Amino acid sequence: MTDDLSQYLADKRSLVEDGLRKTLLLGDGCPPALLEAMQYSLLAAGKRLRPLLVLSAAEACGGRDAAALPAACAVEMVHTYSLIHDDLPAMDDDDLRRGLPTCHKRFGEALAILAGDALLTLAFHVLAESYPPTTAAACCRELAGAAGAAGMVGGQVEDLAWERAPRSYSVEALENLHARKTGALFRACLRLGAWAVLGERQGGPDVDLLQSLDDYGRCFGQAFQITDDLLDVEGSSAETGKRVHKDAARGKFTYPGFLGVAESRERAERLCRDARDHLLRFGKAGERLAALSLSIVDRKR
Amino acid sequence: MTDDLSQYLADKRSLVEDGLRKTLLLGDGCPPALLEAMQYSLLAAGKRLRPLLVLSAAEACGGRDAAALPAACAVEMVHTYSLIHDDLPAMDDDDLRRGLPTCHKRFGEALAILAGDALLTLAFHVLAESYPPTTAAACCRELAGAAGAAGMVGGQVEDLAWERAPRSYSVEALENLHARKTGALFRACLRLGAWAVLGERQGGPDVDLLQSLDDYGRCFGQAFQITDDLLDVEGSSAETGKRVHKDAARGKFTYPGFLGVAESRERAERLCRDARDHLLRFGKAGERLAALSLSIVDRKR
Repeated sequence: MTDDLSQYLADKRSLVEDGLRKTLLLGDGCPPALLEAMQYSLLAAGKRLRPLLVLSAAEACGGRDAAALPAACAVEMVHTYSLIHDDLPAMDDDDLRRGLPTCHKRFGEALAILAGDALLTLAFHVLAESYPPTTAAACCRELAGAAGAAGMVGGQVEDLAWERAPRSYSVEALENLHARKTGALFRACLRLGAWAVLGERQGGPDVDLLQSLDDYGRCFGQAFQITDDLLDVEGSSAETGKRVHKDAARGKFTYPGFLGVAESRERAERLCRDARDHLLRFGKAGERLAALSLSIVDRKR
Repeated sequence: MTDDLSQYLADKRSLVEDGLRKTLLLGDGCPPALLEAMQYSLLAAGKRLRPLLVLSAAEACGGRDAAALPAACAVEMVHTYSLIHDDLPAMDDDDLRRGLPTCHKRFGEALAILAGDALLTLAFHVLAESYPPTTAAACCRELAGAAGAAGMVGGQVEDLAWERAPRSYSVEALENLHARKTGALFRACLRLGAWAVLGERQGGPDVDLLQSLDDYGRCFGQAFQITDDLLDVEGSSAETGKRVHKDAARGKFTYPGFLGVAESRERAERLCRDARDHLLRFGKAGERLAALSLSIVDRKR
């Protein structure tokens, strides 16, 4: 990764984290114990990859960070809620997340469930309060569609079902699973970035523009998932900040488990190139988005 | 309850249940196991009190059921998700709800958590998809504010904290707790009914009109909570469809526990009268809403 890109990502991360911190402080009337659990998980050091996608998509559409920040924060809240709930004993039963004890390990299961619920709800509150009506409604629709039963939550249901009763499988089945579990929210990040900037223009963002961003998001999401699986095989807990080798221990289907490490890596790199091909129409404005896709292939966590 | 009111409530319940059923069928791409768990809890026989409030508030504002139905369904989804999560072993650990095994008893904890998450998300999806932008954005804002950390979820956190470490308390503390845990969503029902009908009018519903409905909702919610506590003391499982005497068994603070049965009943009746006093401006259009407040004092479940 170039120094320039590293600096850019660090600056944007700090912008997002300021935004998240300020949004939580607005939580007037929130019981202190709940606020503490929400802050603990939301402000733990994260890659902030989804908010970065929102901000870079907005930049590709000619907009500024300020316009995209509420949507970026909303997506990170949804992502964090999903981590809190997925880590629960009844689900993946994980003890470590972002280098810290998971939310339920630190605050107990009841508060972890409720902190997740509150973050999900807050995401929609932020969207509805921060944008003019057309943009707010479109953002709520995009986010709910991606996060709900046909998207992220549905993907988690399928993932758990697979793990508990392995069935015949294929790379296509694996792709379909991830398309829901992680892909839908990645794609929504790109679309939210466009809506945040162009939502009040007559008719909203062009259909073609949304499609290009969506295609980028799809390729990006797949590449991300493959490198996530590779990190589980190759990485260490110290680097990733979460338990590793857990996929294999659970007999989870993964890309390296199915395709081998070398072919998985090749596939991720090809997908990153495909992702960038969808950005041609954006010219120079799409450069940050293109750079983001480069950063995921050689990441260490 | 008069026959006329009983028939009216039965008709509206059936309208709401049709709406809920149709909304779930639109869940294209939802894994069947998740859909089954969502349906199980959402379509179990319920009072549908919150959707009835939305519909009746819309009627008071001169609107039709069709305009208010999506908001009515969204509120019932949020209410149902809250029941599913509150019943979990880590929270109230209940086995029986609406006369059936609770969602986690029937489908396991993981699926119950995810069905709740999916219903909460679907509520916002329904609002964002069903209404024109100004109404959609306002409804998402109202619902998120009422359901989130400063409202329902915050109330549940306080309720659990009280139960686990009883502190000094008063009727005011009890009222504050319920104002969040159940009151905020009741008030939102009334406001949603107004937004659903008047949302696209220049400037939206009048502030005074929203305030009158909000005041009605506040009194109604308090009266409802008191009668809920009374039913736990006086009712049977067969009538209420949930475990009774559980409040006392857990040492929960309740109105009858604090004020005695007779004073609690008087207080509920006074609150119902207060609720109706806030409806004067609506004249004949507010009659159904007035009748609804009568129906809760002599309910058996």
